Order: sequence, then structure tokens, then C-alpha cells
Amino acid sequence: MTKIGIIGGTGPEGLGLAMRFAKAGDRVFIGSRSKERAEDAARRVKEVVPEAKVEGLVNDEAVEQAEVVFLTVPWDAHKSTLEGLTEAIGDKVLVDVVVPMLFDRGQPKAILVEEGSAAQQARAVAREAKVISAFHHLDGTDLQNVERPMQGDVLVCGDHQGAMKKVMALVERIEYVRALEAGGLSNSRYLEEWTVLLLHLNRIHNAHTGVRIVGA
Amino acid sequence: MTKIGIIGGTGPEGLGLAMRFAKAGDRVFIGSRSKERAEDAARRVKEVVPEAKVEGLVNDEAVEQAEVVFLTVPWDAHKSTLEGLTEAIGDKVLVDVVVPMLFDRGQPKAILVEEGSAAQQARAVAREAKVISAFHHLDGTDLQNVERPMQGDVLVCGDHQGAMKKVMALVERIEYVRALEAGGLSNSRYLEEWTVLLLHLNRIHNAHTGVRIVGA
Repeated sequence: MTKIGIIGGTGPEGLGLAMRFAKAGDRVFIGSRSKERAEDAARRVKEVVPEAKVEGLVNDEAVEQAEVVFLTVPWDAHKSTLEGLTEAIGDKVLVDVVVPMLFDRGQPKAILVEEGSAAQQARAVAREAKVISAFHHLDGTDLQNVERPMQGDVLVCGDHQGAMKKVMALVERIEYVRALEAGGLSNSRYLEEWTVLLLHLNRIHNAHTGVRIVGA
Repeated sequence: MTKIGIIGGTGPEGLGLAMRFAKAGDRVFIGSRSKERAEDAARRVKEVVPEAKVEGLVNDEAVEQAEVVFLTVPWDAHKSTLEGLTEAIGDKVLVDVVVPMLFDRGQPKAILVEEGSAAQQARAVAREAKVISAFHHLDGTDLQNVERPMQGDVLVCGDHQGAMKKVMALVERIEYVRALEAGGLSNSRYLEEWTVLLLHLNRIHNAHTGVRIVGA
């Protein structure tokens, strides 16, 4: 049982992860700037997973309760959210799921990040945290459909071996999902940008896509 | 039966594609700057696929013989090779398989391209060509192992519907490989960069990786 904080847990990806981890028996603290919205999200988790151990809190309280902190806010809020939580995060494991992107005439488009990637920006802001980049390629809607097994791999990259192992174990709390080590945090850009391609594929094929690595 | 020219057909990826297309019954023209090396490569194709219809030629002759031209040269040679062949290519279908990358202290790393991607650079150089980006994620060594079925998807992007269809049909000449439409040529960067991640995965997992899209 891991105590998991999900900053941005009211969005589709964060909510989906909250449901899956709650279903796996982990204890989940959903964080939001608004305690009310966090509590609403916690109620939604309970509707889907009645046995869930889940609570809605303001962001810094959710971080404080957690052993592992997930960041699932929109890109626009990435840096400012982290700046406000750096102290609370301290040297905890921080799983960055954020994808730097915008919509350009309705089309998703990756944004270049000065630090190299969202995860590298997180490391630049939350200097003590053990930043791991992962969980980009699990569709938020599919995650919320907890009765249906997920498909696909979660690629995990980072520079802290202990934190990598911890996050890879969390990945495999989600049934049928495989964790795959994908190198150092400087590889995060490849994971983040691939998400944008998956969004294109979702539109083109009217689907919820994910990725599986073959041959490994 | 399609007449396929492979510029850079002496490298592992080009050679592998030559073998697979020859095995599927297509006619293959391997191009190289050196006719001798092109002929050597053609002989290697015949050793593996005795019934192959394959010829080794200098690049511009290979292009002239072909209906569909594949470009599988190293990134360093991408622009200069295209500049020398623009006239021969004319308005043919040009399949760009090139990945802009370098090795930085032994680690593969994607290079940002001014035009957005290798394929967009190809379009900027060979203005009449119908440029399609595809075939980045099939391992060259696995392709050459023609008795073993390939795994994985080939994502195809481009801005010419007719050329897209033609290339997608070519993809599926390779047994068990699926062609998947991946949007306009501006998505090529995502396909190209993902190849660099696969190279990292190959090293980390001592494997020959490829990709499959789940949910579509």
C-alpha cells in the first residue's frame, strides 16, 4: 500500500490514475487548488471504486500526506504549480506526467521546453525531489473505465534508481500494464512528445490509443 | 509489383527493406554513390532472397528506375543527397526514413531540424516530390532476418492522400506489419524522434525494439 498524492487529480488523467490506484488498494490523496473540487473528485473515485481509500485536499496537504507525488496538471500550470509546492515536495519521489503542448488551429502540437522537457523543468524547480517521468501514454478515459483492463506499456525514465524501481512497481499495480525502463530523465522529451502523436492518432482513428514496445 | 528505389540501400535499414520488398515480389533498385557497393548490396539481397528481382545502381539511376523512392541515408547525408537527386526524383513518391540524430558521448540524441523534421526538409529540397514519412520503427537487423516475421506498426504521415495510400499498401507487403495513418507531414518529427527512444531501449534491454499502437 503506497500513499499517493495526485496534484491535478481533478483532470481526466489524474482522476483515472486515482481510480486505478484506489482499485489496487493504494491510498490516494487528490490535490487541487480548490479543496471543494478535490473533494468532488474524491467522491467520483468512490462512486467507481466503493472500497477506495481516497481523500480530496488542497495541493500542499495532498503532497504532505503522500510518499509519491504525481503531477498531472495542464502544461500551462506546470512551472507555477511546482514553484508553489517545492517545499512540501522536498525530496519525495515526484512522477511528472505533464506533456508540454498547445492546440494550434485545433491540432495538438508539442512545445519545446528550455530545460529539455517538462520533467527536466520539474527537476530544475524542485531541486531536492527525485523526479521520474512516466504514465504519459495511458488514456485518461480508459483509466477511468476501471472494469476494463488497460492495454499498453508505461515507459519510465529518471536518474534515481531507487525512485525508478518504486515507480515501476506502481505502474504494475495497474492490471495488464507493463513498466519499461527507458533511460535517464533526458529521455523524457521523447515520451512527452509521443503523447502528442497519440492525440493525433486518437482523432484520426476515433480511438483511445496507447503504446506497446515490441521486441523487449 | 512495385518498382522500388532505395537510396542508401547499402545501410542496415535500406538493405533490410530491400530484402523484405524483394521477398514480397517487388522489383528493387538499390542506390549508392558507388555502383560497386550497390552491386554488393544487391548480391547480399540475392543470397537471402534467391528469387529477388534486384539490381545495384548509382543513386540517380536507381531513382530513375523507381516508381517509389526510399531514402535511408544517414542524417549527415540527408540534405546533400536530396539536392543531388531532386531532378531525378521529380514528382515521384519519396519515402523518407531518415532520423535526424547524433551520438553524444555514446548516447543517441535527436537533433532539431530547422524545417521541423527530416521529412519536411526533404519537401523543402525536393519541391515536386510527394514526400511521405514512414518505416522509422522497423529494426534493420530484424528486417534482414527475412525468415522471421516482423512485429509492430509502421506509422505513415504525409500530405498527399494518393501517395499515403500507395505507401501504406507497401508497408503491408511486409508480413504481419500494420500500416497506420498518422496525419500530416508536420507529424513526422514525432515519428523520427521516437526512433531515438527505441535506440535507447535497444541498449537498455539488449533488444531490437519496435512499436505497436494499442487501441487503434
